Amino acid sequence: MHVAVLFFAFALTGTTLALDNGLMRTPPMGWLAWERYRCDIDCENDPKNCISENLFMDMADRLAEDGWKELGYVYVNIDDCWSSKQRDDQGRLQPDPKRFPGGIKKLAHYLHNRGLKLGIYGDMGKLTCGGYPGTPLDKIELDAQTFADWEVDMFKYDGCYSNATEQELGYPLMSKALNATGRPIGYSCSWPAYQGGLPPKVNYTQLGEICNLWRNYGDIQDSWDSVLNIVDWFFENQDALTSAAGPGRWNDPDMLIIGDFGLSMEQSRSQMALWAIMAAPLFMSNDLRTISSGAQSILRNKMAISINQDALGIQGRRIVKKSGIEVFWRPLSKNASALLFFSRRTDMPYRYTTSLSKLNYTAGSYKVFNVFTDETASLKDSTEFVVSVNPTGVVMWYVSAPAKFNLRQFYQGGTLHGRVYDDREENAIPRVFL
Amino acid sequence: MHVAVLFFAFALTGTTLALDNGLMRTPPMGWLAWERYRCDIDCENDPKNCISENLFMDMADRLAEDGWKELGYVYVNIDDCWSSKQRDDQGRLQPDPKRFPGGIKKLAHYLHNRGLKLGIYGDMGKLTCGGYPGTPLDKIELDAQTFADWEVDMFKYDGCYSNATEQELGYPLMSKALNATGRPIGYSCSWPAYQGGLPPKVNYTQLGEICNLWRNYGDIQDSWDSVLNIVDWFFENQDALTSAAGPGRWNDPDMLIIGDFGLSMEQSRSQMALWAIMAAPLFMSNDLRTISSGAQSILRNKMAISINQDALGIQGRRIVKKSGIEVFWRPLSKNASALLFFSRRTDMPYRYTTSLSKLNYTAGSYKVFNVFTDETASLKDSTEFVVSVNPTGVVMWYVSAPAKFNLRQFYQGGTLHGRVYDDREENAIPRVFL
Repeated sequence: MHVAVLFFAFALTGTTLALDNGLMRTPPMGWLAWERYRCDIDCENDPKNCISENLFMDMADRLAEDGWKELGYVYVNIDDCWSSKQRDDQGRLQPDPKRFPGGIKKLAHYLHNRGLKLGIYGDMGKLTCGGYPGTPLDKIELDAQTFADWEVDMFKYDGCYSNATEQELGYPLMSKALNATGRPIGYSCSWPAYQGGLPPKVNYTQLGEICNLWRNYGDIQDSWDSVLNIVDWFFENQDALTSAAGPGRWNDPDMLIIGDFGLSMEQSRSQMALWAIMAAPLFMSNDLRTISSGAQSILRNKMAISINQDALGIQGRRIVKKSGIEVFWRPLSKNASALLFFSRRTDMPYRYTTSLSKLNYTAGSYKVFNVFTDETASLKDSTEFVVSVNPTGVVMWYVSAPAKFNLRQFYQGGTLHGRVYDDREENAIPRVFL
Repeated sequence: MHVAVLFFAFALTGTTLALDNGLMRTPPMGWLAWERYRCDIDCENDPKNCISENLFMDMADRLAEDGWKELGYVYVNIDDCWSSKQRDDQGRLQPDPKRFPGGIKKLAHYLHNRGLKLGIYGDMGKLTCGGYPGTPLDKIELDAQTFADWEVDMFKYDGCYSNATEQELGYPLMSKALNATGRPIGYSCSWPAYQGGLPPKVNYTQLGEICNLWRNYGDIQDSWDSVLNIVDWFFENQDALTSAAGPGRWNDPDMLIIGDFGLSMEQSRSQMALWAIMAAPLFMSNDLRTISSGAQSILRNKMAISINQDALGIQGRRIVKKSGIEVFWRPLSKNASALLFFSRRTDMPYRYTTSLSKLNYTAGSYKVFNVFTDETASLKDSTEFVVSVNPTGVVMWYVSAPAKFNLRQFYQGGTLHGRVYDDREENAIPRVFL
């Protein structure tokens, strides 16, 4: 709640730290090819899964016809390996003629006609990571104009085969070039992932001014280990990362792998919930033509999505880290918040006893909505409760504003910070963050 | 096929290496409490999941009423934490009076009336691993007789708090004591797991003579990492392990965690398939009251079960180990075999090109049944095929006998052995193992 107050105060000054293209005031949602389809260009033997216009049109059909679009999943994003190995005779990038015979502009129209948006991919080096033509410094303006001509809506700029100096010049230059086209194009920068993801090497203030989202860390793989690795990194470095995020500028822990091969249902709920806490972009990388109903119900969870998409855009934090159990918290609009209990156990459910007051909530009576079971409860701050969290699973709550709310007690300084406490501190922790 | 020939020749000599109680001529199947329910004794706060007679009666009801029994899942096995902390005034083990008010004998009758069998647990040390009374050397005869009096059908003898000398005396002594009761009691020995699992420390010939099954390695946990760790160990040591297995004597890689929290559907199929290849005991440790239909369909797969339960009882082997893909093979009755393709990738499906002849099959035409899709195909040994294996998933085939079969070409020696080859050898491998 206190965070909300701070944010509004800040917003009133009239400045903005986000890229000034008006886009992505909430984390972008959609579908992205890479994790699931990689650089599969073997359309002869694997026509349903190869990187081709058919794949993107298939996914567009699913997003538009199966109700995903209405939930917010509107981007359909091409990743690496879409282009011809040669630029055209005017030096422009061009799609592989066999796999994208209609061209990118026609594909963009196909999407736009269905209320969807198209994303495309490039790389700052001489080559993309997959070995296709890159977009080095001297090609930035040309390629930005090409994407705009094709009516592309989002651009991811990767960094393979480029050095730090080129990146320092190129990422801001591309931002300017995209803006200069006059077309609103969401801009995803892989820059910080190539700089180790942390200040002082990464300048998150600058990133917020030139990019709409950025990859801070390595690529996700289709495994629970990979999800845990990403989650660990993002929350161990939350002090450096959370302040970078806000409307129009997002940390990107990479794609949702829900519906693929590596996650159990518990783990799928955990990824969805943790990405919601992180205010992360929600790009599914899966097969929407064959996805199971179980995975669908997680990806379509309206309360998880609304937490992710909260208008304040404040990235959540880990507030408890004990052996086997962790608790995460994200402040939301209307003085509400999200609470997430996450078990690291791999044996039996963790029965965790706590109270809202122990979790830094102020005195009052709260309404609690369980995101994945739709149960509701009323809870006083002082009431001890037990939450049973399955191995590798989560319990996620939307917590409404307290019945009694004293604004003064939240606003006692000018900086926003949280803290992680451990067992030893538990009886000594302050009740309020600020 | 050649293996079958050898086995029958061997069987005709009339000798047997297995514990002479006539039990478990195929790997035992059923349900075991430990992995899912651990030492949860909190019946006040967690009545549905605590170790109590209610839990075992619940699972018995499910096995009997939901068709599991007809598939072969007949054992209902108690693990640690069932007993009172004190022996009774005659020195006998007794169940916890609050959690097992009816006593073990009544529970056994409950199961027997439903066509099921009861397993129970003890430990060679002064205490069990969970801190309950153990069965040290001087209590072995008494406890064996107590279990027989209770009409127990299987006994798992753990090894916490015992040393190598006690184990060397105690495991054979318990075998004799169980046999001496006159009641057929399947005998599961944790001994090799406490000896590191490998010869020369472990004497598998002796184990086959005194135990029906044995735990070679550490406990399974509810995670894919744990399954992989077990699979790696068993197949890296297959030369030492496979010859130990046969009717009445089984290596036990531990419980099936299918239906729990840690495995995806792909990974669940993989565990089922790998356990079938290994001729492993199939003890589910899950909640049969709430298990998903997806997990059920894997555990109920009749062809996977019939491969697991093949009468020859020959433990399968890994025959190909490449980066990202492995192939396993198990010879079956009627000159058939099981082939298993397993992908280690965590990105996209592995499209693996091979032929039956490359996988050591002799010339001929084979019928192939896909265990998890029910597809069938005819395949000549020389026909190249591509099998697409999902990340962390399997493709499992039952391969029928070849239409033409020349017995002489298989029988060229007196010993059974297989070999693992790698890429470099692929063009040089012999077509037949022996």
